[in-house]
Amino acid sequence: MLIYKDKTKPAVERARHLLGLMTLEEKVGQLVQPFGWQTYEHRDGKIELTESFKQQVQNGGVGSLYGVLRADPWTGVTLENGLSAKEGAEAVNEIQRYAIENSRLGIPILIGEECSHGHMAIDGTVYPVPLLLGSTWNVDLYREMCRAVAAETRAQGGAVTYSPVLDVVRDPRWGRTEECFAEDPYLIGEFAAASVQGLQGDALDSDASVAATLKHFVGYGSSEGGRNAGPVHMGWRELLEVDLYPFKKAVEAGAVSIMPAYNEIDGVPCTVNTELLEDVLRKQWGFDGMVITDCGAIDMLAAGHDVAEDGMDAAVQAIKAGIDMEMSGEMFGRYLLEAVSQGKLGIGVLDRAVLRVLVLKFKLGLFDRPYVDPERAGQVIGQSEHVQLARKLAEEGIILLKNEKDALPLDKRAGTIAVIGPNADHGYNQLGDYTSPQPADKVATVLKGIRAKLGAESGRVLYAPGCRIKGDSREGFDTALSCASQADTVVMVMGGSSARDFGEGTIDLKTGASKVSDNSWNDMECGEGIDRMTLGLAGVQLELIQEIHKLGKRLVVVYINGRPIAEPWVDEHADAILEAWYPGQEGGHAVADILFGDVNPSGRLTVSIPKHVGQLPVYYNGKRSRGKRYMEEDSKPRYPFGYGLSYTTFGYDQLRISADSITEDETATVSVNVTNTGSRTGAEVVQLYISDVVSAASRPLMELKGFTKVELEPGESRTVEFKIGREQLQYVGRDLKPVVETGLFRIHVGRHVNDTISTELAVREGK
Amino acid sequence: MLIYKDKTKPAVERARHLLGLMTLEEKVGQLVQPFGWQTYEHRDGKIELTESFKQQVQNGGVGSLYGVLRADPWTGVTLENGLSAKEGAEAVNEIQRYAIENSRLGIPILIGEECSHGHMAIDGTVYPVPLLLGSTWNVDLYREMCRAVAAETRAQGGAVTYSPVLDVVRDPRWGRTEECFAEDPYLIGEFAAASVQGLQGDALDSDASVAATLKHFVGYGSSEGGRNAGPVHMGWRELLEVDLYPFKKAVEAGAVSIMPAYNEIDGVPCTVNTELLEDVLRKQWGFDGMVITDCGAIDMLAAGHDVAEDGMDAAVQAIKAGIDMEMSGEMFGRYLLEAVSQGKLGIGVLDRAVLRVLVLKFKLGLFDRPYVDPERAGQVIGQSEHVQLARKLAEEGIILLKNEKDALPLDKRAGTIAVIGPNADHGYNQLGDYTSPQPADKVATVLKGIRAKLGAESGRVLYAPGCRIKGDSREGFDTALSCASQADTVVMVMGGSSARDFGEGTIDLKTGASKVSDNSWNDMECGEGIDRMTLGLAGVQLELIQEIHKLGKRLVVVYINGRPIAEPWVDEHADAILEAWYPGQEGGHAVADILFGDVNPSGRLTVSIPKHVGQLPVYYNGKRSRGKRYMEEDSKPRYPFGYGLSYTTFGYDQLRISADSITEDETATVSVNVTNTGSRTGAEVVQLYISDVVSAASRPLMELKGFTKVELEPGESRTVEFKIGREQLQYVGRDLKPVVETGLFRIHVGRHVNDTISTELAVREGK
Repeated sequence: MLIYKDKTKPAVERARHLLGLMTLEEKVGQLVQPFGWQTYEHRDGKIELTESFKQQVQNGGVGSLYGVLRADPWTGVTLENGLSAKEGAEAVNEIQRYAIENSRLGIPILIGEECSHGHMAIDGTVYPVPLLLGSTWNVDLYREMCRAVAAETRAQGGAVTYSPVLDVVRDPRWGRTEECFAEDPYLIGEFAAASVQGLQGDALDSDASVAATLKHFVGYGSSEGGRNAGPVHMGWRELLEVDLYPFKKAVEAGAVSIMPAYNEIDGVPCTVNTELLEDVLRKQWGFDGMVITDCGAIDMLAAGHDVAEDGMDAAVQAIKAGIDMEMSGEMFGRYLLEAVSQGKLGIGVLDRAVLRVLVLKFKLGLFDRPYVDPERAGQVIGQSEHVQLARKLAEEGIILLKNEKDALPLDKRAGTIAVIGPNADHGYNQLGDYTSPQPADKVATVLKGIRAKLGAESGRVLYAPGCRIKGDSREGFDTALSCASQADTVVMVMGGSSARDFGEGTIDLKTGASKVSDNSWNDMECGEGIDRMTLGLAGVQLELIQEIHKLGKRLVVVYINGRPIAEPWVDEHADAILEAWYPGQEGGHAVADILFGDVNPSGRLTVSIPKHVGQLPVYYNGKRSRGKRYMEEDSKPRYPFGYGLSYTTFGYDQLRISADSITEDETATVSVNVTNTGSRTGAEVVQLYISDVVSAASRPLMELKGFTKVELEPGESRTVEFKIGREQLQYVGRDLKPVVETGLFRIHVGRHVNDTISTELAVREGK
Repeated sequence: MLIYKDKTKPAVERARHLLGLMTLEEKVGQLVQPFGWQTYEHRDGKIELTESFKQQVQNGGVGSLYGVLRADPWTGVTLENGLSAKEGAEAVNEIQRYAIENSRLGIPILIGEECSHGHMAIDGTVYPVPLLLGSTWNVDLYREMCRAVAAETRAQGGAVTYSPVLDVVRDPRWGRTEECFAEDPYLIGEFAAASVQGLQGDALDSDASVAATLKHFVGYGSSEGGRNAGPVHMGWRELLEVDLYPFKKAVEAGAVSIMPAYNEIDGVPCTVNTELLEDVLRKQWGFDGMVITDCGAIDMLAAGHDVAEDGMDAAVQAIKAGIDMEMSGEMFGRYLLEAVSQGKLGIGVLDRAVLRVLVLKFKLGLFDRPYVDPERAGQVIGQSEHVQLARKLAEEGIILLKNEKDALPLDKRAGTIAVIGPNADHGYNQLGDYTSPQPADKVATVLKGIRAKLGAESGRVLYAPGCRIKGDSREGFDTALSCASQADTVVMVMGGSSARDFGEGTIDLKTGASKVSDNSWNDMECGEGIDRMTLGLAGVQLELIQEIHKLGKRLVVVYINGRPIAEPWVDEHADAILEAWYPGQEGGHAVADILFGDVNPSGRLTVSIPKHVGQLPVYYNGKRSRGKRYMEEDSKPRYPFGYGLSYTTFGYDQLRISADSITEDETATVSVNVTNTGSRTGAEVVQLYISDVVSAASRPLMELKGFTKVELEPGESRTVEFKIGREQLQYVGRDLKPVVETGLFRIHVGRHVNDTISTELAVREGK
């Protein structure tokens, strides 16, 4: 038996052996990744592989495919012509079979898919977007979700996912804000580790694990002006301390794949940033997985960043800098062979990349079990446990921003409710970017959620869309006002849309029906490539709220959207506000659970919500020397980091610490009693922040360094403990190295960054 | 004769000798700088030195005084109790005499004053703010101004000035935008060198020279959120290439003093940034002058940046890092002696600082001619040549942004003109920050300028203030509308105010009289510490313009203000718009000259004017990978860098270059013919930009690398030439070192950054 076919040998040994057998063409073939949806045609329920794919397999092979299963306008794959769970698995099997049986060495293909908040296939479960997942502050639940996502993906043969997104979001104008967990590196770091644990599981070659790809490495959340992929102005200290931190956590958790970001930092595009890809990632952190570009990133080196003369120069620079595979571009496939023959690229560098790709394939078990069971795929994908998990996550992540005059929870037994707004019954709008279109009956909208909640009494629910997300049509106002005037409570479901939607407008303002079947993106106001100049509600949404408000009814505003909304009028005039981000396919049930009090809200903000775009940036963990105010307004956000209300109240007392001082090698324990002082069971996110009183290089006033979510019954008390040691106290010092400095720290515990109680801890010289 | 008293010896030798004679107390005394206005009382026309000053002289001495002559609400010195030109000189003489005659070694005091756009004394000439000075693109005229400013300052005994401000302004929310020349490092660099040449002259010890202090070193124009002194996010490449560049030019021009900025960069406050103060400034650039902090900057280390334990720690860190003198704080005076005695500070470091201070005093000739001639001060300060220069600069720097329907120039002989707006006749408002209050009759407001222009026919001019800069009072609307309705043309003089004004409001809306005599800053909307969250006109100004516009008269808007105004409605509806920034004491004449066509406008923007605050940043020389648009709007400014209209037109042709390729050590010459194709004499600013087609680290798409202002008669042509060599082609490469890379460059010549013609130049390997 050939060594590389011997399952008993270690992956690296098998890979080395295989590499030794390969031609140059076969090597380059391993580094390319065509679009998966272009490898087959789906007609009359049958999959037929395309000739071009077959040719490519025969001419050196195909290392990987991007998006065999992804469906959306970008791929052209629709609900109608797309693949069901079972069909998708069959398609991947056919692809693998062809590749294995029609190539000289029988190398299986690495099937890569998007899975940031659910396996992005037509039947896949759609979880809330990461911004909501972060808002749960429930890392264990998120890890469970990642296990479920991995199971759905691998069930169809997907073996690597292009998630998690670990960008530290600092400017909410950015359309990808929704894809990020938070503005805080520590919080993201916790989710980052959970993500890798959940996606990769205990063994990469299990049938419920996929390789995680960390992205976007690095700084992508700090692009200039919030404009996607714009240049990043950042020095090394901030890079090391803030943006690199979550990636380090994920690498420590065992991540096997990583994707450099499109952006440049201080003049150097991440795709060719050797300091990052070699010095930091591999040498300092010991990462030994593979590095894949973002889509089109190599082209961008020659046309965009203009640091390469042409495609060949770009391809050579990239592979030399540490890129192993090019995502869905043509530069590697077109130029690497020629570069070798012209002497511009040594075989050693090529081999290094190929080896990393092969090692990952061996680790994933692709050589040993390349095929999946389509029947099983049909059972695993979209299973009810996963749907329940999606609902649970939404319930834990939706944030109650305001609740006055006892507006919430609503009474299930009395009163008429008008549900108004463009996002009230638009399923696709509430799913966020990077989701495949979904059958309308699969998504629980807020309207459906409320009707389901009231069951037999759902006749008390009136509905009108009122307006679109964008545009200035007021033709729906009259119906909406008429609905609202008949109601006791108006629930206005407003916000944004990241749906790469198929609707001309996305909603029929007369019938309220949402359309997901034609071909424009008219209502998209968030998502990749849709950055905003203002942060207010788009279109005539605010006007509609103001008109409805005049009726004097109880007014509850529910935001479904992908980035902070700065709309002071609503903050002032609505009786209650729920921020639901894009809550996923079960979002409407979750919203209804909270509106009627079956779930006590426990989501907490992971991004600061500004009052005005002109205040940016407002992220909480800025430096202490930040200016305090503008002429018009202070520089503080409307709702701070960590903030979120509950239907009950919590008291904090008996803050104590196990030691007055420790050395840098010791730990102290800080404890606090948290008591449910209200009359309903509820969960509180207990947050730990530290302030380094004096430091050689400056530090933020407050830095999150721990958190725990605890559920308490009325009157119940719990002691919550946090360990404080090197991890919590160190920072990147004057010499750019991690250091715990002696001196005083303030230790804060509380309900959000601006509402804490505190004590002190000194760090003293060790012996 | 003691060596230090021997004029024939070199400054350094004299300083070393003197240092050898000094006690510790005397040494520390040289490093402190109390407030100058606190050293005396001015009563009944007599100057009396305060006891505390005398004590301080006797107890070790006073190295320097800040602002003996400065008057403004901050100092509490008013027009009424302040010093005239002659009195100021007498006061300084008395101060010097006391210091020399009552200290053991007779060391004169370094008198430091603010002179950014005029000697900041009551009788001093007030020039336009630097933002307008930059807009002249006339470096020679600015150099002349600096000679005049130096002459006025030195005539009163001022020997060092805290200018020029060389910050590269990148965010117009910042209230100090007005104090900066531009958003472009090259343009600032040219003004920087001219500033040093003008202020310092050929000999520092002449009676018309002062030491220039470069500030704020460095990055201060890139503070987070445009908030004053906020943290700066920047890597070394950008720092070296952009923000440090103008300072380097000024050091090369011989600057002898520099001031670190308040801000931190990537965690390190500039006040203790050894890499900047020692490695870059002294070692790489060879600077051998003195370093003085900004006011309160050492305190800020312990309370603000929190990088020091307490005042002593802050003082010791600062002097060790390279600070020689503390501006008007108490940390050096309070702690340095004790720090020496506790062994925290070595004598060597103390001596290093003292020596630098003494050397500067010797170079300035203070030991040899410490006194000035008060009679001469009365003649030099505010002399008519200086006033004419102030007018000329304003004429050359005011920018015509829009001119449709032949709105301008106005006809001197016909028609009634309504001059409306809060800045139409408010002298102090048009002077900008860092000016002393001025007698009302000294400042030519726009109203006065127009009336003077029309002379006997000034009866055709109507006036109403209409509204205040800020606040929502509309009580002046009726009068303004009534005025406007009687006129053929309405000139609306709107904008901002950086006047640390004494008015309750600053203007009487009924009489139009401006008040400069009581005690609040109500109308201040720009200047140090007044950062904006929006960029629109404050208060009800836009509303007033809109009301007036309804009358259908010819509408000319003149902005008098300190930062870009983003007011799209005005851009769309006004017939003509003049941006006059703060045009100084002669500003009204300059505006009138332009309005009536006696001067053809030739000012060009040195900052890009955005359409909306949410587009920021919009500076022209960003990286090529900047995103292109927001959902609501593109990311381009309303008016681009280099833009400005004329009453004539200019054509560009025959662009040619002396070589197709050069080596890095050669130069090429690019030539272009510029023709006045219109019917009036006018000046054009011919601008040279380069684009490096491919570079190892990314570069901006366009970089200004040359400019010439040429005046042409109708039909006249001129060939304009630019040299292109190392200076134009080099940048900060991948290894952070300056490099000229081989390859292609595009060479653009034109009227503004978005309107150029271009050719190519290659750089080839040298022999």
